[in-house]
Amino acid sequence: MTKPASGMAVPGAAALLLLLLVGAAAGCGYQSCPPTRPGLLNVHLVPHTHDDVGWLKTVEQYFYGVRNEVQHAGVQYILDSVVAQLVADPSRRFIYAEVAFLARWWRQQDEATRRTVRQLVEQGRLEFVGGGWCMSDEAAAHYGPAIEQLALGRRFLRREFGACGTPRVAWQIDPFGHSRQLAAIFAQMGYDGLFVGRVDHQDKATREGLREMELLWRASESLSPPAADLFTGILPNVYNPPSGFCWDQLCSDPPVVDEDSEENNVDSIVSTFLQIAASQAERYRTNHIIMTMGSDFQYENANLWFKNMDKLIAHVNARVPENGRLLPLRGRPPPVLDGLFHQPTCLQALRTPQQQLSPGEAVAVAQHHDAVTGTEKQHVADDYARQLAAGWESCQLLVANALASLGGSKENFVFCNALNVSVCPLTEAAGRFTVILYNPLGRQVSWPIRLPVNGASYAVTDPQGQPVPSEVVPVSNFTRRLRGDGGSAVRELLFQASAPPLGFSTFTVSRLSRGDPRAHPARTPVVSQPREIQNEHVRVLFDPLTGLLKEIQDLDKSISLPVFQSFYWYNASVGNDESSQASGAYIFRPNSSEPFPVSGSKRVSAHLVKNALVQEVHQNFSSWCSQVVRLRAGQPYVELEWTVGPIPVADGWGKEIISRFETTLQTDARFYTDSNGRQILERRRDYRPTWNLSQTEPVAGNYYPVNSRIFIKDKKFQLTVLTDRSQGGSSIFDGSLELMVHRRLLYDDNRGVGEPLVELGANKQGLVVRGRHLVLLDTVESAANRHRLLAQELFMAPYAVLAPGGGPSYRRGQPRVRQFSGLRRELPPNVHLLTLTPWDAGALLLRLEHQFERGESANGSQPVTVDLLNLFSAFTIVSVQEMSLGADLPLDATSRLVWTPATGLAQPRPVPKLDPSRITLQPMEIRTFLATVQYEVPGAGPGGP
Amino acid sequence: MTKPASGMAVPGAAALLLLLLVGAAAGCGYQSCPPTRPGLLNVHLVPHTHDDVGWLKTVEQYFYGVRNEVQHAGVQYILDSVVAQLVADPSRRFIYAEVAFLARWWRQQDEATRRTVRQLVEQGRLEFVGGGWCMSDEAAAHYGPAIEQLALGRRFLRREFGACGTPRVAWQIDPFGHSRQLAAIFAQMGYDGLFVGRVDHQDKATREGLREMELLWRASESLSPPAADLFTGILPNVYNPPSGFCWDQLCSDPPVVDEDSEENNVDSIVSTFLQIAASQAERYRTNHIIMTMGSDFQYENANLWFKNMDKLIAHVNARVPENGRLLPLRGRPPPVLDGLFHQPTCLQALRTPQQQLSPGEAVAVAQHHDAVTGTEKQHVADDYARQLAAGWESCQLLVANALASLGGSKENFVFCNALNVSVCPLTEAAGRFTVILYNPLGRQVSWPIRLPVNGASYAVTDPQGQPVPSEVVPVSNFTRRLRGDGGSAVRELLFQASAPPLGFSTFTVSRLSRGDPRAHPARTPVVSQPREIQNEHVRVLFDPLTGLLKEIQDLDKSISLPVFQSFYWYNASVGNDESSQASGAYIFRPNSSEPFPVSGSKRVSAHLVKNALVQEVHQNFSSWCSQVVRLRAGQPYVELEWTVGPIPVADGWGKEIISRFETTLQTDARFYTDSNGRQILERRRDYRPTWNLSQTEPVAGNYYPVNSRIFIKDKKFQLTVLTDRSQGGSSIFDGSLELMVHRRLLYDDNRGVGEPLVELGANKQGLVVRGRHLVLLDTVESAANRHRLLAQELFMAPYAVLAPGGGPSYRRGQPRVRQFSGLRRELPPNVHLLTLTPWDAGALLLRLEHQFERGESANGSQPVTVDLLNLFSAFTIVSVQEMSLGADLPLDATSRLVWTPATGLAQPRPVPKLDPSRITLQPMEIRTFLATVQYEVPGAGPGGP
Repeated sequence: MTKPASGMAVPGAAALLLLLLVGAAAGCGYQSCPPTRPGLLNVHLVPHTHDDVGWLKTVEQYFYGVRNEVQHAGVQYILDSVVAQLVADPSRRFIYAEVAFLARWWRQQDEATRRTVRQLVEQGRLEFVGGGWCMSDEAAAHYGPAIEQLALGRRFLRREFGACGTPRVAWQIDPFGHSRQLAAIFAQMGYDGLFVGRVDHQDKATREGLREMELLWRASESLSPPAADLFTGILPNVYNPPSGFCWDQLCSDPPVVDEDSEENNVDSIVSTFLQIAASQAERYRTNHIIMTMGSDFQYENANLWFKNMDKLIAHVNARVPENGRLLPLRGRPPPVLDGLFHQPTCLQALRTPQQQLSPGEAVAVAQHHDAVTGTEKQHVADDYARQLAAGWESCQLLVANALASLGGSKENFVFCNALNVSVCPLTEAAGRFTVILYNPLGRQVSWPIRLPVNGASYAVTDPQGQPVPSEVVPVSNFTRRLRGDGGSAVRELLFQASAPPLGFSTFTVSRLSRGDPRAHPARTPVVSQPREIQNEHVRVLFDPLTGLLKEIQDLDKSISLPVFQSFYWYNASVGNDESSQASGAYIFRPNSSEPFPVSGSKRVSAHLVKNALVQEVHQNFSSWCSQVVRLRAGQPYVELEWTVGPIPVADGWGKEIISRFETTLQTDARFYTDSNGRQILERRRDYRPTWNLSQTEPVAGNYYPVNSRIFIKDKKFQLTVLTDRSQGGSSIFDGSLELMVHRRLLYDDNRGVGEPLVELGANKQGLVVRGRHLVLLDTVESAANRHRLLAQELFMAPYAVLAPGGGPSYRRGQPRVRQFSGLRRELPPNVHLLTLTPWDAGALLLRLEHQFERGESANGSQPVTVDLLNLFSAFTIVSVQEMSLGADLPLDATSRLVWTPATGLAQPRPVPKLDPSRITLQPMEIRTFLATVQYEVPGAGPGGP
Repeated sequence: MTKPASGMAVPGAAALLLLLLVGAAAGCGYQSCPPTRPGLLNVHLVPHTHDDVGWLKTVEQYFYGVRNEVQHAGVQYILDSVVAQLVADPSRRFIYAEVAFLARWWRQQDEATRRTVRQLVEQGRLEFVGGGWCMSDEAAAHYGPAIEQLALGRRFLRREFGACGTPRVAWQIDPFGHSRQLAAIFAQMGYDGLFVGRVDHQDKATREGLREMELLWRASESLSPPAADLFTGILPNVYNPPSGFCWDQLCSDPPVVDEDSEENNVDSIVSTFLQIAASQAERYRTNHIIMTMGSDFQYENANLWFKNMDKLIAHVNARVPENGRLLPLRGRPPPVLDGLFHQPTCLQALRTPQQQLSPGEAVAVAQHHDAVTGTEKQHVADDYARQLAAGWESCQLLVANALASLGGSKENFVFCNALNVSVCPLTEAAGRFTVILYNPLGRQVSWPIRLPVNGASYAVTDPQGQPVPSEVVPVSNFTRRLRGDGGSAVRELLFQASAPPLGFSTFTVSRLSRGDPRAHPARTPVVSQPREIQNEHVRVLFDPLTGLLKEIQDLDKSISLPVFQSFYWYNASVGNDESSQASGAYIFRPNSSEPFPVSGSKRVSAHLVKNALVQEVHQNFSSWCSQVVRLRAGQPYVELEWTVGPIPVADGWGKEIISRFETTLQTDARFYTDSNGRQILERRRDYRPTWNLSQTEPVAGNYYPVNSRIFIKDKKFQLTVLTDRSQGGSSIFDGSLELMVHRRLLYDDNRGVGEPLVELGANKQGLVVRGRHLVLLDTVESAANRHRLLAQELFMAPYAVLAPGGGPSYRRGQPRVRQFSGLRRELPPNVHLLTLTPWDAGALLLRLEHQFERGESANGSQPVTVDLLNLFSAFTIVSVQEMSLGADLPLDATSRLVWTPATGLAQPRPVPKLDPSRITLQPMEIRTFLATVQYEVPGAGPGGP
């Protein structure tokens, strides 16, 4: 029995009472709930619309209702209509989820309409659920942007609607699977529950039989219950109305005709409804069941829905007296589910690059479950890219302003966004320029700089004017092919730069004239079919016959592990005898469990490029697949930079490309993946923790989302692969792990998008993707110490801003600031500065997190204490208030329903008095603070929200 | 220049000003018009919805929005939504036409909503156009029901909305052609103008070039101008919005996006609109043009339309100052069009039987332009039939009650509706029964009674108990085949009955026992291949070789005319090189101008059945086509009763069956058809009076609607064929005329209905149709004297009600009334009692018409005077008020705009003081009276509306 704290009675038997949240509204939230009847089955009709923040159309097209020939959908009209219909009848209720659209619409409204809507919210007639900027994806979203997009939406709701605007339930009705980390986030934001729509059909069938459609999800091993416990309800019919009861303009179900007419159907409609309700009640354990009355972009003409629901309610409730004792209901405590709330057996392709700076609305939009997943139409994907680019441009402006302000000079900052293909007009042409390395992390970083140049030799100096070792290497053939006509550099300048925590360092680069004593000729010894590369920490061995990686050694810990790595492609299914399902944007379905090697001969041509800073083995797997295996001086991991595409499909075969690692580790069918880049979850091949799996897809059914890392281990050693983006990954046989790096498919998979994932670039060829895998070999005990920090460094990577150099100083008489740190000292290794962003005037929002799970590291997993007051250099904290994770509510004002699960009641701990000088973080804890600050440096204040 | 009486200025040049009837509403009607700007082009955006009273769905399905998978349309929601949107913004306007739906919706509404709607009407924000119960058809509708359905709608509007509810313009935007008689009706109902949507494309192109899209239609030769003059505007785009400006949920045109968005399109939308307006203005002569903003079943979500129109208006009007001198406009008087407003070159099949009693809502509904035309889906046609049957049943009840009341006896009246196939259980079984002949006409009639019986001999007595001659004949094989298992009679009883004006006569029928002296054996001499039949007025000659009719002689006037008559079928086109157009529900298109004879051998088997009352030649053209050529004693016309169907289509050829008459008359390409059963219009083959016709369809392009009659003539003689239903007819070569009696087609003609006209009956075979053509041969001078009266007798035919006989008398001591006349004397031959119906309590609505046109008969076409006060026997007229034709307005309260056409101003005559004892009717005049009455016979009063 899921049981709210208020002590709802356990029913014995129930008749049918139909309730649409009707009743004299005494306020918003639970106060606005209609009176229920304990002895009856209470059917809660929940009118809602599901408004994708981009899918078959772009966000703007959806909002305005442009391109209705693609899909009839116009959110401006939906909100117009729902508000009008709520105003028309005080007994009507509606829930709304997507704040991206609500905020867009809000801007259109005059003050009178806003007042009306505020009143509807205050009276509980319009209620917000979810309340994020979008309904974020769960599989491919990183926890940082996932939090930010929720906070962005919740902040809007709080600001415009006050306490009544605060959503009470999370509403993840369309994402294609559900993640533990996101559940933990919802709990910490104060949501009382979570409703989900899409669940593996085997899981759902099992739960229906056991009446376990509602459960308490313990979403964290590290946080003390009930901090991450979340009531979770699986909706009966995804998020659609019962069959035959869809009264939207987009549906064709007959309306209720209860007047004198040959079309009168009220008796048959009521009977059908009672049957459906009784059948649904058999799958749920309490005498309260939910029906979602709405679907995709419905309620554009809300009158249709409400007029017919009003009639349905009246006619069904009129039958109540005759219907007594409809359902015998059982009452026993609910199970507690410890594991992940299950992935679908399919995995979505991942197309949208992760955004790495502070998220704005564009980044929030990109978290949408049809955006980051790649299940949108191509023109919509292009629009997301355009929006992200626009968002990134405004980010650049913010960074430039901040750098100018902090550095005290009016530089013409240049952002070279194509450095990964060695294109940057400034560095290609200039004889002298500066490189400002910006570091958003709370720890100092050392970061490799690689810039396209045309000179033969350069002098690099650090902020203090000291020389920094540098090298010049030829641009690789892989990169030349990739950049096409986009750049002219023949060489790349390499140097290792470092930057202080939450700060920047400025490096000066000058081309050396021939004969300059500091110039040393570009030494680029090239060795064919190399046998090994090695730095002070790691040795990597290659098979000279095949050119492939064969062993990794950790020299510090004297570990040696055979590791064979190569690229393969799964042949995409076009449907077969078992199922007509093709592999597509939504569904990964290979037609065989055996992938083909990309290098048909199983040999690759390889050569070594080596200098004092870096050693690289360049492997050419085929004309469209290559890889650089790289070791830099001082780095304790191996970097694999792969370049894949355009995937050839002229043979008529869709292809899904993987990088597979094979080792001798005894892994016992187990492997480990992160949940939204944060928690680590154990996966077992051909197994689900809560039901007896019937596995029909031996490859795809074992694929899981990898946002930041995947690893395998035996009792002693662990091989971890960090990714620079979300990918699908698995371990198809013991000792192996694999990651899907690219896909190109020729058939639509019939889930709505209506396009094959064949993506053409500007040159009308398939897309080329370049990415990185960082491979860590370590002992099981100490692996987390490395992968936790390295993953954070990969996600919140330092960024190099360029400038011609020599701009005038802002502040007369003061030298330019060439190095700056916003922190007075580095944060401890297990603390991550998740958020630091201007809030209201004079205030900053700050999130600190403990980035280790309980028990994964002897030192890292210890509680850690930080002195907030003495932490920042740029400002002084005047006062500080601890907030809930969503930042919209003071922590001590947050209250959640308390549930009593089978494992016993866990009472929430009272919020202790805040001592900002001693902020203690427990493993996996995120704490959120709103700080009023005073700035030390004039003019360096935040710009406001 | 069309020019209203108020003296609207003739513009010289104009810029563009966009007006959506916006402005401070000072009242309804023209008072609510927005201020115009004389120097500018004033574009009137007219928001409207076109709601077919049945088409692809039934009336009820359309109203509720049932079966939206067939067509998305729900009128209840349209009216809900429009009202809400009008309320939301006082600057918005809407027009509505179809009262059948409005009245249905009105019943649903609470008093508050009704008050709101009344207010909208009073403020001119909601305005009614057309205002009939439906938008009637023009080609196939008879003027009687056409008037009644308009009056029914107008009465509702007047009752619920008062003066502001009165429609000012007729709105015939979808019918497939326009009739002169209906235009005359509109004028006499007080409409100021008529808007039409569908005009022959050649006509329209000519008018666009000449700027004659607006004209003054002189809709009667008989009525003195301007009584039947009607301003007529041809809409620019049928009734649709300009291309790209359809903002309904059923359309996909982009909305106006005028905010900061990548979808912003306001400049391009405004530019396109200005181009369209300028281009349209070139086709109209004044600086006021209309754009119809709406279409079929649009405005279900009126917000979409209004929100975008509001934006369009704002942005276009904002450009006015920059757009000066856009259009040079010409100013000269408009032409006056004397002829018919042109038919389309296609003719619709006619499936719905004419209703012959006083029309209720079902009959009004059946006048709809997709009902009587047969362009609806089959299931909708079935629904119309069901509605008419239900309406007919309530009619029967009214008739039965009236008969019982007037006759003073409680009889169990029986209505045998299948007498035309000789089925009537009462007469088949009973040894004794009574026949009450009801006569709705204002003159005594003599009417042939033909009843299925099984006895060999019967005695018939008239109301006075005098014997009436009768005959018994075998049921013909044609009829036996047609009735199938539906009846058991082996014989038919024939006698000639007469009934007094507006009254009834009761006849008693008794089966005679064998040996009864009055019994005479059934004499049915059968003669094969007869040569002639003859009564006292007419002789009909047959060709004994072919069995076909070959000559008709009028013995009274010694006229003899060779007349060859036979049946043919046109092979329906399935599309050809010239056009892919197939023949279908909307379009008649034979694939050749030469029809095939139904009797392939051109011979028919024929035999004669003859007795004292009737002579019949039975012709068998094929297994599915037969005809009885009939002469009854005393009748001056030949009756052709044809039975056609099921039309065989197993050969894959659609067929359209005609009856063709060939004569030796020199007709000079001319023939004559009625307009809605009233005016007669001259037609010329391959000719249109107002444009230079390019004839592409030599047969179909010469077909015209025939509602009641078609004739050909030379200088002396006229051959007239009267029809018992609306049919298509023509004269394809000189001396001939033809009527289409049945059609069966295998292909949809792609005009929306989506079904071939292949009609299956209950037995899953094609339909069988039985009908009558009455053929009159006369001199040109006196032809009208016969066809005017006979056509009226055919349309308002007497009806035989049956009863077992012997019911008790109502009034103790009083004998039953066996004969009754509502009139004290017959009406003069040229006066027709069009309407006599209960109105409000104690009041009757009365319409008298002069049924001759000016000049068509020496006597008949004279003005005629009637004494109303002394006319009726059942009641005394206490007071009487003359009304406009629609009966919703006193005649002296009716005012219409006065136009000055090229032929000079015609001022309406002032309404003279009414003298009810001297009601003079001019040719073609219809006068409408509301009379307060007192009943002579207790209990025989009207039942109220």
